Amino acid sequence: MDCIIPIFWIVPLAAVVALAFAFYFYRNMKRESEGTERMRTIAAHVRSGAMAYLRQQYRVVIVVFVVIAIFFAFLAYGLGVQNRWVPFAFLTGGFFSALAGYFGMKTATYASSRTANAARQSLDRGLKVAFRSGAVMGLVVVGLGLLDISLWYVILDRFVDADGAQKLVVMTTTMLTFGMGASTQALFARVGGGIYTKAADVGADLVGKVEAGIPEDDPRNPATIADNVGDNVGDVAGMGADLYESYCGSILATAALGAAAFARVGDFEMQTKAVMAPMLIAAVGIVLSIAGIFLVRTREGATMRQLLRSLGIGVNTSAALIAAATFVILYALGLQNWLGISFSVITGLVAGIIIGQATEYYTSHSYRPTQRIAESAKTGPATVIISGVGLGMISTAIPVITIGVAIILSYLCAIGFDISHMLSAENLSLGLYGIGIAAVGMLSTLGITLATDAYGPIADNAGGNAEMSGLGEEVRRRTDALDALGNTTAATGKGFAIGSAALTALALLASYIEEIKIGLQHIGEKVLVMPSGAEINVADASILDFMDYYQINLMNPTLLVGVFIGAMMSFLFCGLTMNAVGRAAQSMVEEVRRQFREVKGILEGKATPDYARCVEISTRGAQREMLMPSLIAIIVPVVMGLVFGVAGVMGLLVGGLGSGFVLAIFMANSGGAWDNAKKFVEEGNFGGKGSECHRATVVGDTVGDPFKDTSGPSLNILIKLMSMVSIVMAGLTVAHHLF
Amino acid sequence: MDCIIPIFWIVPLAAVVALAFAFYFYRNMKRESEGTERMRTIAAHVRSGAMAYLRQQYRVVIVVFVVIAIFFAFLAYGLGVQNRWVPFAFLTGGFFSALAGYFGMKTATYASSRTANAARQSLDRGLKVAFRSGAVMGLVVVGLGLLDISLWYVILDRFVDADGAQKLVVMTTTMLTFGMGASTQALFARVGGGIYTKAADVGADLVGKVEAGIPEDDPRNPATIADNVGDNVGDVAGMGADLYESYCGSILATAALGAAAFARVGDFEMQTKAVMAPMLIAAVGIVLSIAGIFLVRTREGATMRQLLRSLGIGVNTSAALIAAATFVILYALGLQNWLGISFSVITGLVAGIIIGQATEYYTSHSYRPTQRIAESAKTGPATVIISGVGLGMISTAIPVITIGVAIILSYLCAIGFDISHMLSAENLSLGLYGIGIAAVGMLSTLGITLATDAYGPIADNAGGNAEMSGLGEEVRRRTDALDALGNTTAATGKGFAIGSAALTALALLASYIEEIKIGLQHIGEKVLVMPSGAEINVADASILDFMDYYQINLMNPTLLVGVFIGAMMSFLFCGLTMNAVGRAAQSMVEEVRRQFREVKGILEGKATPDYARCVEISTRGAQREMLMPSLIAIIVPVVMGLVFGVAGVMGLLVGGLGSGFVLAIFMANSGGAWDNAKKFVEEGNFGGKGSECHRATVVGDTVGDPFKDTSGPSLNILIKLMSMVSIVMAGLTVAHHLF
Repeated sequence: MDCIIPIFWIVPLAAVVALAFAFYFYRNMKRESEGTERMRTIAAHVRSGAMAYLRQQYRVVIVVFVVIAIFFAFLAYGLGVQNRWVPFAFLTGGFFSALAGYFGMKTATYASSRTANAARQSLDRGLKVAFRSGAVMGLVVVGLGLLDISLWYVILDRFVDADGAQKLVVMTTTMLTFGMGASTQALFARVGGGIYTKAADVGADLVGKVEAGIPEDDPRNPATIADNVGDNVGDVAGMGADLYESYCGSILATAALGAAAFARVGDFEMQTKAVMAPMLIAAVGIVLSIAGIFLVRTREGATMRQLLRSLGIGVNTSAALIAAATFVILYALGLQNWLGISFSVITGLVAGIIIGQATEYYTSHSYRPTQRIAESAKTGPATVIISGVGLGMISTAIPVITIGVAIILSYLCAIGFDISHMLSAENLSLGLYGIGIAAVGMLSTLGITLATDAYGPIADNAGGNAEMSGLGEEVRRRTDALDALGNTTAATGKGFAIGSAALTALALLASYIEEIKIGLQHIGEKVLVMPSGAEINVADASILDFMDYYQINLMNPTLLVGVFIGAMMSFLFCGLTMNAVGRAAQSMVEEVRRQFREVKGILEGKATPDYARCVEISTRGAQREMLMPSLIAIIVPVVMGLVFGVAGVMGLLVGGLGSGFVLAIFMANSGGAWDNAKKFVEEGNFGGKGSECHRATVVGDTVGDPFKDTSGPSLNILIKLMSMVSIVMAGLTVAHHLF
Repeated sequence: MDCIIPIFWIVPLAAVVALAFAFYFYRNMKRESEGTERMRTIAAHVRSGAMAYLRQQYRVVIVVFVVIAIFFAFLAYGLGVQNRWVPFAFLTGGFFSALAGYFGMKTATYASSRTANAARQSLDRGLKVAFRSGAVMGLVVVGLGLLDISLWYVILDRFVDADGAQKLVVMTTTMLTFGMGASTQALFARVGGGIYTKAADVGADLVGKVEAGIPEDDPRNPATIADNVGDNVGDVAGMGADLYESYCGSILATAALGAAAFARVGDFEMQTKAVMAPMLIAAVGIVLSIAGIFLVRTREGATMRQLLRSLGIGVNTSAALIAAATFVILYALGLQNWLGISFSVITGLVAGIIIGQATEYYTSHSYRPTQRIAESAKTGPATVIISGVGLGMISTAIPVITIGVAIILSYLCAIGFDISHMLSAENLSLGLYGIGIAAVGMLSTLGITLATDAYGPIADNAGGNAEMSGLGEEVRRRTDALDALGNTTAATGKGFAIGSAALTALALLASYIEEIKIGLQHIGEKVLVMPSGAEINVADASILDFMDYYQINLMNPTLLVGVFIGAMMSFLFCGLTMNAVGRAAQSMVEEVRRQFREVKGILEGKATPDYARCVEISTRGAQREMLMPSLIAIIVPVVMGLVFGVAGVMGLLVGGLGSGFVLAIFMANSGGAWDNAKKFVEEGNFGGKGSECHRATVVGDTVGDPFKDTSGPSLNILIKLMSMVSIVMAGLTVAHHLF
């Protein structure tokens, strides 16, 4: 049976439009002048360092991918506990995620010198070049994402051999494997890139700023090129892969839930529409994001608030248009309860905005919380750390409550507020679909929000380029203004990423149960013998039946052990990545000290430091350190399933989700606030640059670096990757487990 | 029917023996000389400050208790959703917990000058005085605990009006209310005391050590008396109340589960025995702990390792004897499957020892992890913080896995390894009882482990007294050795407290379901209409039936929201207490700076600082700041129940337990490691005292103070208090809830 209805073609079309605009912005950017000879040289250095790193990274990741794909092939063709598309879907997910990161980074490395050069003319010119280059990344991510999804959908529609309702279920759950590939590659990109960038950043700061007393991005600092490379490989390539994964994950998880929810009803047409809905909302989001991108502009001498407002106009206009268009498209689609489900989408959209606002409140130095951290610097670095940790922990309350409300509201909207049968089997499927589509709503503005996010490191690099090329004060002031703006948008972007991760992970949790069902069918189980003794056909079993059958309730000790292990996983993962940054930074510090000591004349500006050696140290450190935490994330869910079965895995996922979500917000916000508290002092408060207070806030900023750019943002990938691994391994779990 | 069998009388007898030995040790300690006139004066200052604080604290707590008791009275006598013993049981729990803290602290304040004086003679004399004074606290806590439990048991046996099996269920669940009183008072004591002690400590260090460059406990530092007072009110009184609550909580929760498990079987005699078992194990533990206390001795010039060994001999001998005695007493009791349940007890005992060892490994500077933190000080305070956070997070793995294994093993032992029916309704009750009794096993050595724990602050204070009284180098060296030992035992003690909290909280989770059943009966519900349409009598419903009825499974969105909120609660609570310490410390810093500035001659030792003013600042700060976090812990579970009902509350408890448990280990271990990394540098490594490295580790130590002594240890009370509140409010929750 054919699962493609005409309206589907909007999806690949939107993807192509996004890629076309990305190419358009890219070509326009390339046409700008790169500035002076020196600017060109520095940009080339950074570019080649970044590309060299990415090549090295991909070499390692390819090996991991090949090993996993072979393992999957063995499960699929050898043991027969998995379907035969899994290895291929897995590989393509990884490939496209890497591609998104690659294009984004390539653009960024070309854009930084051009942004610096544009900033020599005016602030507005600088903003435009940087922002539209960021938009390349935003559009590549969403464009590639939807393109891949469409491709797989068409391919599977052609080849999957099942009837009616079951066909869509198999198709959508197979596509989730594609999500696992994207998540795996994203985790490596985030962790490897995060370690790289923060090792370089921390190392450069510790010796450069603190010991030698030279400014940031000073060409005399041997780690400065590595630092700029790091912005590209961590903040651009890492983030691109990360959000590619979030974007596809939310759409795929929701599609799978839609297929499952309506498969039970038996209405094939409605089922197809439910699968289409998240893709269509994403498609509409792309087009309206592009419209928003054209609205972003500013004028000379704009204050921070004005700059924020000009970005805000773009983002908010897009969001408002998407909200309106959601009703139209779901109505046109003819989805059952289209009105309720539209409101579920809006719930997600609004929740994203609230989380973004809360993040801004807690991390921007325009507000009291961050100013209070700066004030605590009067009593030294220890109180800066204490108050920063305190702030980060308290800042978790609003996002968590917001997500809680969003979960309930999007669920209730999707079931038409049928509260008296809130938890009936049918409403449960539908409500969970509502939660998933709220995540899609939250990420529907990604085309433009990611542009505001990716623009940050471009501006940061432009500043670095301006400093190293010895451009005037005025230029540096402009790039600094752009950079400061980037700090806030980066924090907001992280809020989005983690908020959508929480909702997506819930949807994946439900998909896991669906996959368990398919797994049981795959190994030939036809009937479930329930604890009560009743028998139920696997094919007819509802989510609630599986809850009952596997005793996925809170008194099951295997599940409770899973919760503990899950909660621990987030901490262990963060601890490993924190230590990785610490170790890599220490090697960097020693190298920079060695160069200052052994190479005469560096500090006087008479000798050129050995930049390449520092780049190499960061690269090696990142490659060595990224493997262990990433592999743990993949292996633990598999082991958990083999030992404790379905209930243990569910516990693991929920425990990891609960603590990982909160921990991620804490780390991102503490880190962001420390960074901006330092900036607040640098603006002349509490003694300004060079004062005791400033030194204390530099300590906070340095501690915050791995918090906000390595450990924290990796957590949202960890949460989803563990879910994806569990889903792909569901067949193995139902076939073999100890308890 | 009579629920008291002859063997029961061992329980109050053991309690009386414990109190008698406590009195004996107390009198012996009082007979020691207090030393010179100056030592006497300083001790008197500290004592009066500590008592003044405790009086102030109790004044606030009494108000809170009266308000809550009136509310309970309204629920019980007005709405009729609670039984009529609740308000009284609640009040007595708080009273006895406060009493345990009070006695412990009174002893400690008398013991410090006497320990200092004894240390003038020899190390062994010093250790003995300090350790046996610590033993007073250990024995008071366990003695009062068992005494109260016995008293309530006898009273309720006389007055509860129900038949057979039901009577024991009502008795034991009513006694849990007594546990809530203890937890509430413990939370205030831990949070208030923790804020007090760390505000004084951080304040004294920041200005004294870092700015003025005078040593710790120098009489010229105005905050030094407040710092010493803090050790008593936080580390002694706070910890006493905390462990009193843990001890009673584990026994009461297990007794309640025993009553419920065997009520279903209908065997009244076996039910009585199951209720007795945890009390008897505790009673045996008391007697054998006293035996262990007499084994602790050392000789002059003992190294840290030898001191640790001498404490170890006492603790390990007690543990081994208790393990053996468990088999005897449960066999004599004639408990069904006594062998399996004995092994559950041993599982807990062994898990406690493993967690203790792991804690020692991660926090003692005899091992690599802490030494690595000290080494990272070479690159400044930022890397000290990064590596400490990394270490703390990684250190969560072993305790969590240990508890996971303990949960499964104690469950399986209790059900006789009947794996094929592992999750049947009967086995579930029995297995959960096994988990509870493992917690009792872990805490059975509390009489002696708490002695090793309480001895730490006494030695610390003795050092302070020696310093301020100007006793010789030799004495200070001896008290320092005792103090360093105390740091490690304190970390181990925290491991025990949090490990037992995790197991107890699981038992409480099961008790919550039992209480829901009683609540339903209380409001007159007779029949449950299950989702499948079947009807079950409330009286006959098993734990699994309630799971089904309330859909306490991982797909229920109200439960998932509960998990998120629960995970967030731990972080919010820690954030609030961290900030409280930060704020209170800042006032302290400003006051000390003011005195140095305004009162001439302090630093030259010519003028006496105004100690009392600093004591007052800490007191006021602690009182002001402790209310908010403590009230949140009480109110949130109530609100959760009213809005999201039983499933929401269960989610809240599990989410809080998962993230709170891991967060507590992280914070305790990071803090302990920072403290000892500083000590490692002070012993002459990486430049020793006064070097740049030393200054960097002092920053780590200061950050670690609230981690390990305020926020971290409060979390285990938070986890259990939220459970206790939910249990006591179960009647209200079943009667009124929104979803």
